[in-house]
Amino acid sequence: MNTLDNLIQALSRLPGIGPKSAARIGYHLIKTNPQYNKELAKSIGTIQDVVFPCPVCGSYTEISPCRFCSDSSRDRELLCVVEQPQDVVTISTSGSYNGLYHVLGGAISPLDGIGPEDLSFDSLMRRISEGSFQEVIIATNPTEEGDTTAMYIRHLMKDFPDIILTRLASGLPIGGDLEYADRLTLARSLRGRIKF
Amino acid sequence: MNTLDNLIQALSRLPGIGPKSAARIGYHLIKTNPQYNKELAKSIGTIQDVVFPCPVCGSYTEISPCRFCSDSSRDRELLCVVEQPQDVVTISTSGSYNGLYHVLGGAISPLDGIGPEDLSFDSLMRRISEGSFQEVIIATNPTEEGDTTAMYIRHLMKDFPDIILTRLASGLPIGGDLEYADRLTLARSLRGRIKF
Repeated sequence: MNTLDNLIQALSRLPGIGPKSAARIGYHLIKTNPQYNKELAKSIGTIQDVVFPCPVCGSYTEISPCRFCSDSSRDRELLCVVEQPQDVVTISTSGSYNGLYHVLGGAISPLDGIGPEDLSFDSLMRRISEGSFQEVIIATNPTEEGDTTAMYIRHLMKDFPDIILTRLASGLPIGGDLEYADRLTLARSLRGRIKF
Repeated sequence: MNTLDNLIQALSRLPGIGPKSAARIGYHLIKTNPQYNKELAKSIGTIQDVVFPCPVCGSYTEISPCRFCSDSSRDRELLCVVEQPQDVVTISTSGSYNGLYHVLGGAISPLDGIGPEDLSFDSLMRRISEGSFQEVIIATNPTEEGDTTAMYIRHLMKDFPDIILTRLASGLPIGGDLEYADRLTLARSLRGRIKF
């Protein structure tokens, strides 16, 4: 059963998939519609050839620049700084935000060996100095790493005293992950964002 | 973002994967080792070409007959009847069983439109009449459907009064806490209590 074992082994390396879930999915894939398997296999095999980080904001896109950066109807005086590309989608689907985005690529985490030089602070500050932003919203996760990153941004923003710096309100459960916030909580924490 | 959306959509159709888990996995696949993606895609795309139900017992295999049916060291007087192919692996890894298997392909469930004619009772009874089994162990799930299926097997086995018919014991899970046992499990473990 090498092929099935290999498939289950590969599936169990996906985030949030343990050995039992991997086995369940593996057995499911033997019985499922063959067309579905072929399409899923093709999507997984080609995703990295098609999707890349937007050269402006860093969110994942198939066009350059991404649909947010190239959308002239968006408010170019608002910039929302997030940790991960998926956070852009999460905030976007909340329907409460119409500005631009900047993806840092993570959060400062000395324990994981991630320092400011590993994140896109350089391009963030370049965008801020060259753009027409009136407000920068820090939307890092409400975790220790997210807090550290927020404080680092506040430090960098000292050179731009005219730009309002805010942070998502804590209505988000502490220790949680932005990706798993529900729409209402996220919408409320956007509305109630506070000066940082 | 059609490609990524399609991937996330396809992933969310896997068992136990909701929209949020699918998105998390989708974004993970953009960042992961390309070699891993290619291998996972290949496994998913080819699994149905390589793995098939054993023509004898119905468990999934890459050789015909499967490694259980063709293993001469196994006890050919013992037959264990299970619902699904993965149940064979579960029982096999328990290390407590050395007989043969028979996979029904599900359980009788009138609500889901699954009747006896949809399951492999014909080949089960053919194997029993042609084989040298001394005992048939019913290992269907301890659910309403599994119970119905077990009773149906008992009905079929009336033609073979010399073969011992048994069923997996139901009761408290080992290492569990009496306080957290549900009522049905507790009732069944009381009814099935054994002399100590």
